[in-house]
Amino acid sequence: MKLKETERIDDLQLKGLKLIQDINGFCFGVDAVLLANFAKVKRGANVADLGTGTGIIPILIAGKSEAKKIIGVEIQEEVYEMATRSVKLNNLEDRVQIINADIKTIDKELEVHGYHVVTSNPPYMHIDGIKNPNDKKAISRHEVKCNLEDVIKAASRLVMPKGKFFMIHRPTRLVDIIELGRKYKLEPKVVQFIHPKPKKAPNLLLVEFVKDGRPELRILDPLYVYGEDGNYTEELKAIYDNEDIGEI
Amino acid sequence: MKLKETERIDDLQLKGLKLIQDINGFCFGVDAVLLANFAKVKRGANVADLGTGTGIIPILIAGKSEAKKIIGVEIQEEVYEMATRSVKLNNLEDRVQIINADIKTIDKELEVHGYHVVTSNPPYMHIDGIKNPNDKKAISRHEVKCNLEDVIKAASRLVMPKGKFFMIHRPTRLVDIIELGRKYKLEPKVVQFIHPKPKKAPNLLLVEFVKDGRPELRILDPLYVYGEDGNYTEELKAIYDNEDIGEI
Repeated sequence: MKLKETERIDDLQLKGLKLIQDINGFCFGVDAVLLANFAKVKRGANVADLGTGTGIIPILIAGKSEAKKIIGVEIQEEVYEMATRSVKLNNLEDRVQIINADIKTIDKELEVHGYHVVTSNPPYMHIDGIKNPNDKKAISRHEVKCNLEDVIKAASRLVMPKGKFFMIHRPTRLVDIIELGRKYKLEPKVVQFIHPKPKKAPNLLLVEFVKDGRPELRILDPLYVYGEDGNYTEELKAIYDNEDIGEI
Repeated sequence: MKLKETERIDDLQLKGLKLIQDINGFCFGVDAVLLANFAKVKRGANVADLGTGTGIIPILIAGKSEAKKIIGVEIQEEVYEMATRSVKLNNLEDRVQIINADIKTIDKELEVHGYHVVTSNPPYMHIDGIKNPNDKKAISRHEVKCNLEDVIKAASRLVMPKGKFFMIHRPTRLVDIIELGRKYKLEPKVVQFIHPKPKKAPNLLLVEFVKDGRPELRILDPLYVYGEDGNYTEELKAIYDNEDIGEI
C-alpha cells in the first residue's frame, strides 16, 4: 500500500492488525487501547465509533470481538480517508466502514437507535485558547468541531434501548459527563479510573452508560499504569496482550 | 456525668474530646472521622452539620478548627438529647449547639444562606427493605427520615454563596450526588475516593461542593485505609492524629 510522505504504518500488537498514522497529525495513545479493551461487544453486534480519527478503535474492536459491523464516524476528510486505507490494509472492509460525517447531524447518516454499542474517545479539552482551529491535532484534542454534549447526544440517538455507550475522558469532566448522560437518558453504570500510579489521582476515566438504565453506579477496581516500582503493571500489560508495549 | 444503662463514653483521641454513644444505637465510624478531617473550616466560620447523630462531627470540628459556631441538626429526640450531653461533657456549649429539627423544614430553624460551611454524613442506603422504620440504627443508615435530595437541598439553603458543603457517601450514589448537586447550585469541585486497599474499588467518597461554583472537578489522590501489607496506611494514621486507632 502506498503511503503519503508523512505517514507511517504501526503494528497494533493484536492479531497482526496495522494502522496508518500521520506523524504530523494526532497519533493514537493508550486511551484508545483502554477504551477498545473496556468496551463489551457481543457477537453479531452493530457498533458505531464517534470521532474515530485514525480508525484505531473500530480496528481494535474488529480484532477482539465478533461484532457484525463497526462504523467509524470522522469529520475530517483527510483523516477519514487515511482511516479507510487502514481498514483496507487489514482486509476488514466487510466488517469495518469509516464514514466522513459530522456527529452533530448523525441522524441523517446512520440508523437512529440501530446500534448495540457506541464508543467514543472524544476531544478532552475545551476550545479556549485554540490558535488554529484548522489544525488536525487541535481538532482531535480540543472541542473544535464538537463538544461533550454533542458526543453524548449523538451516542444517545444511535444506541438502542438498553444498548451501551463506552467513553474515555478526563476526570475533570466527570460532573459534566454524568449530568449530560442523565440528560440524554444514558445512565452511567460503570466507571473505572485510570491512575498513572497507585498513590496518584486518576488522569483518565472509562465510563459505561446504559440507555434507559436503572440508576446505580459501580466503580471498578482502579487501573494503575505504572506500579510503585516504576514498571508497567501486570493489568496494563494484560490489556496490551502481554506483548512488549514500549513507550505509551 | 450520669449515663443511661446502654450508654458508654468513648475517647475521640483528639484534644481529650469524648463522646457518649448508645451501644444499641448507631455508633460513629471511620466515615465521620474522615469527613471531619476533609472539611476545610476557617477561623470564625459558622458551620451546620445535617443529621448529626451522636454529635461526632460538630465535636471533632470544634476540636480541630477555630469555627465560631457549629450547629448539629438531629431529627431523633433521644439521639439529639444524647449529643447535647456530649457537648456539655466537652465544655463546648459556647461553640457547639445541637438542635432537634427536621432538615426538610430547616428554613424555619436556621438562617437561610447563613453558613460558611455545611457538613453531612447522611444515611447511605435506600429505604427499600426496612422492616422497622422506628429503629434508631435504621434511621441513621437508611433514608427513612430524609433522602439524598433532602440533604443536598437543605445544604444548598443553608450555605452562603461560594460557601462549601462537605459530604461523605457511597460511590454507588455518585451519579445522584452530582446530578442533585447541580440541581441545587452546589457544584462538585473536589472528590476523594476512599479505597479499603490499593487494588480495590473505593467504598466511600468525600465530596466538596461550592455554592454557585464554577464547573471543574478535581479528584484528589486516593486514600487507602489498609496498605498492601494489611496495616493501616500512614495517611490514615495521620488523620487519626498518629495515635493508636484500634479497630475501625
